[in-house]
Amino acid sequence: MPDPGPSPLQSVLPSRPVLPFGTAAPVAEAPAVHPPEPAGPAHSAAALERVLRGPSGLGTVSLHWTRTEETPAAAETPAAAEPPAPAASRPIPGLYHHPVPEPDPVRVAELSRRIKAWAVDEVQAFPPEWEDQFDGFSVSRYMVACHPDAPTVDHLMLAARLMVAENVVDDSYCEDGATPPDVGGRLLLAHTALDPVHTTQEYQPAWEESLSSDAARRSYRSAMAYFTQLATPAQSDRYRHDMSRLHMGYLAEAAWDATEYVPEVWEYLAMRQFNNFRPCPTITDTVGGYELPAELHALPAMQRVIALAGNATTLANDLYSYMKELKSPGKHLNLPVVIAEKEGLSDKEAYLKAVEVHNDLMHEFEAEAAALAAACPDPRVARFLKGVAAWVDGNHYWHASNTYRYTLPDFW
Amino acid sequence: MPDPGPSPLQSVLPSRPVLPFGTAAPVAEAPAVHPPEPAGPAHSAAALERVLRGPSGLGTVSLHWTRTEETPAAAETPAAAEPPAPAASRPIPGLYHHPVPEPDPVRVAELSRRIKAWAVDEVQAFPPEWEDQFDGFSVSRYMVACHPDAPTVDHLMLAARLMVAENVVDDSYCEDGATPPDVGGRLLLAHTALDPVHTTQEYQPAWEESLSSDAARRSYRSAMAYFTQLATPAQSDRYRHDMSRLHMGYLAEAAWDATEYVPEVWEYLAMRQFNNFRPCPTITDTVGGYELPAELHALPAMQRVIALAGNATTLANDLYSYMKELKSPGKHLNLPVVIAEKEGLSDKEAYLKAVEVHNDLMHEFEAEAAALAAACPDPRVARFLKGVAAWVDGNHYWHASNTYRYTLPDFW
Repeated sequence: MPDPGPSPLQSVLPSRPVLPFGTAAPVAEAPAVHPPEPAGPAHSAAALERVLRGPSGLGTVSLHWTRTEETPAAAETPAAAEPPAPAASRPIPGLYHHPVPEPDPVRVAELSRRIKAWAVDEVQAFPPEWEDQFDGFSVSRYMVACHPDAPTVDHLMLAARLMVAENVVDDSYCEDGATPPDVGGRLLLAHTALDPVHTTQEYQPAWEESLSSDAARRSYRSAMAYFTQLATPAQSDRYRHDMSRLHMGYLAEAAWDATEYVPEVWEYLAMRQFNNFRPCPTITDTVGGYELPAELHALPAMQRVIALAGNATTLANDLYSYMKELKSPGKHLNLPVVIAEKEGLSDKEAYLKAVEVHNDLMHEFEAEAAALAAACPDPRVARFLKGVAAWVDGNHYWHASNTYRYTLPDFW
Repeated sequence: MPDPGPSPLQSVLPSRPVLPFGTAAPVAEAPAVHPPEPAGPAHSAAALERVLRGPSGLGTVSLHWTRTEETPAAAETPAAAEPPAPAASRPIPGLYHHPVPEPDPVRVAELSRRIKAWAVDEVQAFPPEWEDQFDGFSVSRYMVACHPDAPTVDHLMLAARLMVAENVVDDSYCEDGATPPDVGGRLLLAHTALDPVHTTQEYQPAWEESLSSDAARRSYRSAMAYFTQLATPAQSDRYRHDMSRLHMGYLAEAAWDATEYVPEVWEYLAMRQFNNFRPCPTITDTVGGYELPAELHALPAMQRVIALAGNATTLANDLYSYMKELKSPGKHLNLPVVIAEKEGLSDKEAYLKAVEVHNDLMHEFEAEAAALAAACPDPRVARFLKGVAAWVDGNHYWHASNTYRYTLPDFW
């Protein structure tokens, strides 16, 4: 990315949850007004707190890491650490969320070194001039915050590689600020790096070679190869499914962008359930070193909880990236923009309504997760739900503290 | 479809496996030359035959139905039966396949009556003028041939409804012979009829109402609702994943069509692994009244077998629909067309090479299925593999015998 302007894909798939490596200038000042945090957790949140977060809820699971001695990876690469953690978290006023402890700086530093070595040496994920943006994305701080129960940095690397790869695909498959008309073909061929092709001996080698042909496919292929080494086949299948949802979501948003269609609010929310963070929280068990069995993952109540969590956390991204997208060229669909246009509200009114939509989804997530944990005695269900909740909280922390990327509007 | 010309979607997503309800005129005459059937099964096929088809292979599973007395469904609808079975099967010369017994006419007639009642009365899947094409599609004969172990017509209805719904989506989402530029948005909203949206109380009702708003979504929603009643949650999740693959495949092909891009042969084969029959054979256990557990379904060896079977049977569709697509307006991508253009072969040479690609995939499917069945003692694995093989065979039977839709080129 030789030009430090907005990421090209950012301008065409503006509200996708997996964002390129930061393009907005760092912002130093705090927002004008910071009202008190929202009132204490609602009934449902309190129930979730008891079941999932409280000391008496699930004795075998801790939100703190099981520290293990790890052999540092070979460090041929003089990879620079990502910038130090920012000063203060700046949450959106009125946004319902849970603060998290500052991620362990030792673990962040180690993950930072290793993920950069992977990106630079193993897969050549980005050209040298993108290095600042890679560092500004702070993927290590992000993943350490989101996976507090990862037993080792090896486990965190699973999540970090996939997160980086998802961003590389975003950044690579759009040029000059417009969705290429063949993005449907490109995303499908990239998807084969996750979900392999099985064809004849004559044609198989050309497909295999294609997986090295660009940064997107190199990143997907390598990240998935590491993932399948530690994940069970059913966990890998789950991830592929979530990624096919994500790619369908990208293509729906690209189609609306190409036709300048502004969806109804419910249509936007439906699309955003696919163009969604979901692939990130649903690997929480693999990153945590255990498995939620497929038949428990597939339960309608679990699917509902996952969808609600993914939707809440994805809309948090809409809210934090609102100013960033406003400054980018072209019209960027996000929840406040769609509400303003479709419901005739002012920008401020629409933004504040979008905060309420997010909060409603968070409360619903917590109520349903608490009910499911209470109804289902399998301790892996509770641990998985706790992991999803931790991901939601860590994701909020990352957004609220990433002043390299995000600023807030002046609505308070 | 007031005009009996080519189906609109047929002309833009020409090589998709799930085809609209037939538009070509019936063909009475047999092809010019019918060489002998291919030589006996190769070693791998013989092994599969022993393990999956032979009487000594899997004593608990029979390729014949478990006949049960069924209560006929309420028959308020005076639904006409589909046309009687055609005279003779006309397999493509040299195409490796296995003949199947003629489907039970009693079962075909009952399924035909019930599926038409569902399509006409319950979901209004097509306008009255499409009735001939619905009948010519012969979905009941198709599904009875593909699911010989379905315990009841209720089970067959699961497959028949989903097959009809997949066709309705194809037919509905394309107008005037061109892929609409918003097809990415349309397919995603249709996909929510399979994979539901979870949003706030304010917006949830509008999404729910949308599921009644067109034939495609009415069909998907109803077919999926019946499916989830008999399927386990993991089986429903598997089907959703396969359908997201299918929709990604549609969108890749639509992108190539829109940009007039002719893919490399390996690219075409990769796309066709997604725009693929796969969602049909992988429900064989649900239709058979049992479950292949998710952890066995996710095994890499099983995923490979499913992909090979889906690819072989999808390329059979390319070969049988070659003449139909040749007569349709515009350029239709299928394997013979892509091979001819990319490898500089004549139409005949390319077609015959495509037959060999199909045959290679069939042999590989059978070798891998036999190895997996031998390696995995769980009887559900063998039964599932047998079900997939039966689906492949039944699908070939339907293509070879559907003279309402297909004619063969004069290449022999």
